[in-house]
Parts: sequence; C-alpha cells; structure tokens
Amino acid sequence: VRRYETFELTFQGEPPNGSNVDVDLAATFEQAGIRTEVRGFHAGDGRYIVRYLPLDDSPCRYEVRGLFEMHGEVDCGTASSDAHGPVRAVGTRFVHADGTRFLAFGTTVYALLHQKPALIERTMATLHTAPFNKVRLCIFPKSFDYNQNEPSRFAFERIDGAFDFDRPVYVFWDELETRIRELDRLGIQADLILFHPYDRWGFAKMDRPQCHVYLDYLTRRLSALPNVWWSLANEYDLLDGFAPEWWVGFARSIRASDPVGHPLSNHNFLRFWDFSNPDASHCSLQSSDTHETQNLLRRFGKPVVFDEMGYEGNIPHPWGNLSAFELVDRFWKAFVNGGHATHGETFLDADEILWWSKGGELKGESPARIGFLKSLLESLPGSLEPVPSGLADADDPFEFIRKELENPDSVLFGNPVFQHLLTITEEEMRRMLRFFRVTYGRIGDQVRLRYFGRECTALGTLDLPSDATYTIDVVDAWNMTRRTVRTDASGMVEIELPGREGTALLAIRNEA
Amino acid sequence: VRRYETFELTFQGEPPNGSNVDVDLAATFEQAGIRTEVRGFHAGDGRYIVRYLPLDDSPCRYEVRGLFEMHGEVDCGTASSDAHGPVRAVGTRFVHADGTRFLAFGTTVYALLHQKPALIERTMATLHTAPFNKVRLCIFPKSFDYNQNEPSRFAFERIDGAFDFDRPVYVFWDELETRIRELDRLGIQADLILFHPYDRWGFAKMDRPQCHVYLDYLTRRLSALPNVWWSLANEYDLLDGFAPEWWVGFARSIRASDPVGHPLSNHNFLRFWDFSNPDASHCSLQSSDTHETQNLLRRFGKPVVFDEMGYEGNIPHPWGNLSAFELVDRFWKAFVNGGHATHGETFLDADEILWWSKGGELKGESPARIGFLKSLLESLPGSLEPVPSGLADADDPFEFIRKELENPDSVLFGNPVFQHLLTITEEEMRRMLRFFRVTYGRIGDQVRLRYFGRECTALGTLDLPSDATYTIDVVDAWNMTRRTVRTDASGMVEIELPGREGTALLAIRNEA
Repeated sequence: VRRYETFELTFQGEPPNGSNVDVDLAATFEQAGIRTEVRGFHAGDGRYIVRYLPLDDSPCRYEVRGLFEMHGEVDCGTASSDAHGPVRAVGTRFVHADGTRFLAFGTTVYALLHQKPALIERTMATLHTAPFNKVRLCIFPKSFDYNQNEPSRFAFERIDGAFDFDRPVYVFWDELETRIRELDRLGIQADLILFHPYDRWGFAKMDRPQCHVYLDYLTRRLSALPNVWWSLANEYDLLDGFAPEWWVGFARSIRASDPVGHPLSNHNFLRFWDFSNPDASHCSLQSSDTHETQNLLRRFGKPVVFDEMGYEGNIPHPWGNLSAFELVDRFWKAFVNGGHATHGETFLDADEILWWSKGGELKGESPARIGFLKSLLESLPGSLEPVPSGLADADDPFEFIRKELENPDSVLFGNPVFQHLLTITEEEMRRMLRFFRVTYGRIGDQVRLRYFGRECTALGTLDLPSDATYTIDVVDAWNMTRRTVRTDASGMVEIELPGREGTALLAIRNEA
Repeated sequence: VRRYETFELTFQGEPPNGSNVDVDLAATFEQAGIRTEVRGFHAGDGRYIVRYLPLDDSPCRYEVRGLFEMHGEVDCGTASSDAHGPVRAVGTRFVHADGTRFLAFGTTVYALLHQKPALIERTMATLHTAPFNKVRLCIFPKSFDYNQNEPSRFAFERIDGAFDFDRPVYVFWDELETRIRELDRLGIQADLILFHPYDRWGFAKMDRPQCHVYLDYLTRRLSALPNVWWSLANEYDLLDGFAPEWWVGFARSIRASDPVGHPLSNHNFLRFWDFSNPDASHCSLQSSDTHETQNLLRRFGKPVVFDEMGYEGNIPHPWGNLSAFELVDRFWKAFVNGGHATHGETFLDADEILWWSKGGELKGESPARIGFLKSLLESLPGSLEPVPSGLADADDPFEFIRKELENPDSVLFGNPVFQHLLTITEEEMRRMLRFFRVTYGRIGDQVRLRYFGRECTALGTLDLPSDATYTIDVVDAWNMTRRTVRTDASGMVEIELPGREGTALLAIRNEA
C-alpha cells in the first residue's frame, strides 16, 4: 500500500443474484483522521473488490460492510517518486494532489478501447514517446466516418439486441482498467468519455435509469484509480434524447460516488455546458476561440481546456485537415492565454487507422512542437495567467474607451479615432477588437510570455516591471528554438523579431 | 484623336478673376448621335482646357461655349490595340468600354503623389513589372505612422495656414495628371482617393462647400482620362465631421460632372458604405471576410472589391504583418468567390519607405503569386461567379435544413445531427456554418474552380455536369504550379490532392 496507488481488498463469494452492479458492499477507510466512504463492485465470477486511493502516507484503517465484513489496518508507504496523485482543479489551475502543477497537453483517441489488441499496443507504444499527458477516450464504441469496425466487446451484455446495464461485461472492464493503469504508468490522465452521439448500437438512446446504473458501476470500479477524469460526454448537446437536467444529475451522482473528486466536465458540439455547475471542475470546450480563455477563466473561476480545436490531418472534413502549424498555433494561444489544449490527428490511411479515433502511430509534425511548448512551460516557475489586454478584454469596451479618452495620462487621451469608436455599433466594436487582441501571459512579476501567432511582426514590445531586470528569449514555436537576446531588460522594451509566424517573446526575471 | 484617348482643346486667355475653379467654359461633343456635355477648367497662367474621351471612332463634332467660343469636327481614329476604354461595372462585373473583362488586381500606394520625384520614378518602375492593374492613391497627403514627411506641394493654395479651394496648385495637378497617364500606359487604373482621415493639414476638416469646389475642379479636369476611378474616401466613417448625406451628395455631384461614368465607391473603416446608392458602381470594402462576397453580390448586384484586407509585411500593427501566404490566400478567396482584391505591403525599412504608402520597391513574396492567380483567371473564358454552397449561403439556414430533412432525395434526409441543428440559436448556427463554407466558383458550365485555402485535404470533390467531360488541374497557389490530373472527368469526381495549404482544383470543359 502506497500513497497515490490504488489499494484494494478482494473477496470471493457467489455471483450476484440480481443486478451485478448494485451489490451490497461498502467500506470506510480512515487515514489521518479523514474518513472516506466507498462502495465495492462485482468483478465477475463472484469476485468482489473494494478500492481506496490513499492520499496520505499515514496508517490506514478500514472496515468493510455488507456481503463481506472485515476490518483491519495497513501501513501506507510514501509515494513513489513519479506518482503525484490525482489531478484536481484549484481555482483556474490543475494540480496533482501533491501540489505538482499539471498542464493538460491532451490528445484524442476516441475509440482506443475498441480496436484489436495489437493496435492498442501500438497506440500505447506511441503514447510512451509522445508529449501528451491526457488522452480522451470513449467507454462506448464509436460509429462515424473512418470508424465502422465492430468492437469485439461492449461494456455491458447485449441480450436480444438490447443492453442489460445491470450486467457488465467484465472482460471489457478488465481491459479498460488495464489500459487506464498503463496510461498511468506513462504519466497520462485517462479522460474517460462517458456518453457520445456517434452510435449505432443504442448507447445514445439509453434511458435515464440505465445511465445511472452504468455510472454506478463506473464510479464504484474506477474512482480509486489515480489518473481518471470524467468527461460526461463528447458533444453532449447532440444527444437529443438526454434532457439538460440529466447531465446535472449525472454530475451530481458521480460526485457523490467518487471520493477522490476526479476532474469532471462535459464537452459540447456547439453549446458550452454550464460550467458554473458546482460539480464541474473545469471548462471542457469544443472551440478554437482561444481568445475567449480569459473571459471563461473570469466567468467560471475554473481551468479552461480546449478539448477539441480541430485536428492536424488531411481528411476532407474542415475540422480534420488543419496544417501542423495551425494546430501548434492554437496550442500556443490556448496555453499563453492561461488555458489547456488537446491534440488530434486525422491523416487518411490505407487501413483507415486515424490516430484521432483508433490510435496507431502519429504521422504529423505537430506533436514535436507541442512537446517543445510543454517543456518550455513546464520549465517556468508557475502557471501562466493572461495579462489583461485592456480594450480587447474589457467588459464594456465603450466604457473603457470613454475613460481612456478622458484620462490625460492615457496614450488614447483625446484620440479622434477612438472618439469615433464611441459611435459604432456593438457588432462593429466586436469586429474591430480583433485587432487589439494580444496573446500575452504572465506568472506574477517573474515571467512574461507574449506569443505573436500568425503575425509576422519584426518588432515585439513587452512592458516589464521597471523595478527588476529580465532575460529575454526569442522563441520560435515551429523551429523549436530559443535564443537569448537581452539579459538586462527592464520597463518597456522593444525587441527585434525574425518577422515569421510562430514567434514568441519570453522574459524571465533575473535573480536579484 | 483616337477612340479611348483623351481629346483636348486648349485656349489661352486671362487668368480668372474670381474662383479659379468655377470658370465659365463648357462644351458639347457629339459622336455617333450621342451628345456629351463637359465643362472646362483653368490649367494655370490663363490656359483653359476642355476635354473629351471619345468612346466611339466615328467623326466627332464639338462646340465650345463661355469664355471661349468655337466649334469644329475631327475624325476619330480607332483605338490602339492596348487601349480598351474606361472600366465600368456591368452587373456584378467590371468590363472595359470595348467589352474586355477587367479583374481588379489592385495595390495600394496611398501617398504615392507626395514623395520626391526620384521615389515616384522608382515606384512607377516597380509597377511596370508588377502584376497590379489598379492603384489606390490619395489626392491629399497622409499623416500617419511611417508617413510623416511633408509633401512638397498641396492640391490647393495655402494662405495663412488655410486652404483656398478656389485656387488649385496647378503644378500639383499637372504632376497628378502625368502620373495618371503614366499609369494608363502601364495598363493600371488610378483609383483616386478623394478624402481620408489621416491628416494634419486640415483636409479632414473641410466644410461641405469646400468639398464641392474641390470635386468640381477634380471632375472638370480628370473625367476625360480613361483610367480614373473615384474612391470618395479611404475610411470615410472616420471622417467624423462629414455627415452621411455629404457622401451621397459627393457621389451625386461627381456623377453629374463625369460624363464617362468612371467607377465610384466609398471605402470604410468599420461600417460599409450603403452600396445601394445609385451612384455607387461597386462595393469597395475594408474587410477580409471574403466569404461574404456572395451575399454582397446578391444584395447589391454590383462588383465587390476587397480594397483593404491587410498587408503583407512585418510592422507591429496586426493589419500590417500578414504572411505572404495569408495575403495570397485572401486574394484567392476573394476572386474565386466572384470578387476582386487589393494588395499592400508594409515591410519595415531603414528609410521608412513602405510600399503601402510611399512606393519604392516591392520586397514581398505575394506579388508573384498574385500575378500567377491573375494569369490563371485571365486565361479563363469568362468571369467567375460563386457556386452557391447550400447551407452556408442560405438566407435562412434553419429553413434550408428543415427542407433537406424532409426531402427523401437529400443526403441529409432524416439526419439526426441536422435535426438537432433546428434547435440551436442563430449565433450557434453562425459559428457552425463556418465549417460548411466552400470557396467555389464557376463560369457557367464551362469552368469550375474550387479553392481549399488553408484546408490541407488530400481529397477534393467537384460536382461537374454529367453531360460533358472536363479536364482537371491541381493548382498550387503558393508554388505556382498547375498539373493536369484528369482529362475525362464528369459528374461527381474525387481527386487526390497534395494535402497542402493553398491547393485548388480547376475543371475546364472539353470541347465537344
């Protein structure tokens, strides 16, 4: 038993008579004065398991009730050096239980679980060397373009074409667990997609009680795994049969059954889920509007993850034929604005193995650049927060301009063009503000990171605090280079840039 | 005297006593039964000129009235082989008076006239080999970033700091005319910008009568030059002192004084001018929303010119640091959608000579690609019109989807995702429709041109008429190559593409 590693108690008995999900098995774990209630699950063939994830390394007492009764105490070892514990949202950031910062560099392999074992092995081998630390994958199989293969098994038994959600297919769940644990060993979070609309088997037409039986088994079984995330759905708003209150209920139910408090969110097609929901840990978005990050951070006070922002690839669908640079550019914008992002890859393949849903090998040029960004950000002494860019981020741009015009200290004081802007419509203002957007992050007064995106400017400015000196690097997001150009910068500085797309300026405060 | 070449009658007398603009000199020209009334102008030192642009090659009778009286008749020669006559808008297209198609491949040298002669000569030399056939240039000097040089002369006399618009500075107008004629020899339209807000001398604060005096001299003097266009303003909506009805009055007044009917429009900062104005020949836009072309063509029934869509360059302003590819991409989208576009270049320069306002040499990589596009389009047997892309261009996308869902012959018949789309908001629909946009033009059933822009698809489809065969070329907009891949295509065809940005498919119907 070690801190941050799943501790389990196994019991052998008779298989359940009725529901194989709703079994009468519960336990209380107590560690460092904190009591945690968990429920057990049937793992097949009369094998029952109770699981607990120690978040502390003090001795652990437990008491099992129901079908089996037992109690005991075990010592709990310290965490292994590469185990940091489950990820949680703390304010607008993710951190592991041990306080280690977590920047979510995701990728997407939707139907990873529903491929042949050899392909899953190839996918895992790829992930071993890829830069990603989160994978989005579906519990249920996927039916969509390039995704027509029948899965070898489902999560629940199918009897006469209908699923019996009280009867898990244990070999499926064993395999799922194996893969989640394998991901954990690779340092990768398993962002489990619980529902999705791309279905031909009936999972998109489940009724509400069926959904809750499924979620019951899911949480009993997987909550004690350290690297699990709950993504209620991919494109929840396309599941027309699922009323809005269902999702609220699913979230509440998972929260009640998951003592660890894994990250939980819900991913949209067009309409963002309501992330003010108290059970939502973060904003999970299908969107490439990375300039909205700051607004979302302010509005919800939770981390913002661009979980689907288009894929590097060459399929005819416009969301699946981004250039590598375009995806890398979106990653930079998401992270420098204080968010997180998820990759995907959709290259046509003779065997119809597209990474985005089936895995296999990565063919694109974006992963290396994403890895470069990840290393760069992880080397910084904290998490970026967006630098408010004034006008472009103002709640009321008209009011902002009015104040600047009247402020003798402002560069806009009395400016006639800005005077004019007070007379334009809101829609015109929105269009104009596009030109005032900057992608600019900071870590307190220690770090400034400004990313110029597709702008090919040959001059970049930074407004550094004038009470310290900074070392400034010019960073090339595509060529993955970083070159120090100033070691003593202070106050407002102007730096010569190569005038290429994908350029950033990084300023780090020198030690006093 | 030749068709499409300015014919002028010169008279020597006393300089005007009062206004040097409102001189009592008019003439009637009659050719092929068509009578044209013109007014003359004072060209300095008591020299008076009456001008006429013959649009026919039949004998021309004329009668001069006012300060000078004379009448006569001259034979009029046929047009020289490279003179096609003034450009006019016919429906949504531009054509020269002789029927030759005109695709406006513009560039921008705002303050061309206000530079030293040696620089103007360099600019003209550059234009000689550049692909552009329209130049936007200002009558009044410009005061803006990188534009601080004082002009050597103004269009009107300045007395005690105030301009007297009844006193043209003749040497300025002579120089202007020289440059317009020089442009004409290069086959370039002079898109004259009559007002603009970037001013420190007082031109942006003229009163309405002053404006009309200026326009009176302008039209008397320049209307008979074949290659003149009237752009009422650059960014008219930033001229806060100019009430909306002024612009309507300016247009009406120019139309009344310009017997040739040169193209006339008004260019915006944020708010498009009302192009339904009967005196507007075309839509002149500051915008890069090229996907709006089709809507504008339908709404106004006039040519659409993206006269300012950002500039290739490397200055810090976001509108002035587009990559060459980005500008080329915008050109392709404008033209394939049935519009026209204007180039500009803003590279930092030790001498502050940026092409976009001062001219000099072109440094960028876009002009060659723009030239490639121009040659390709001019080689086609007509003008492109947009292929309606269905949903993305529907007036009412909800209604469009409703009909498709109910149509058993539609690929969308009963589609659940599209069923869902009936429930979304208008704003959500707008966001979603971005994915349905195609850049697709046609010339009747003779030509199809589909441009994939930044999409890196490796498969492109064309829906060709099935009653003919077509030759299909894969075109690379950046590398300027064109490669025939099919010679007998018909109906719905799918073509392998390189999966790079800037790829187009061109299908031309084979002769029967």
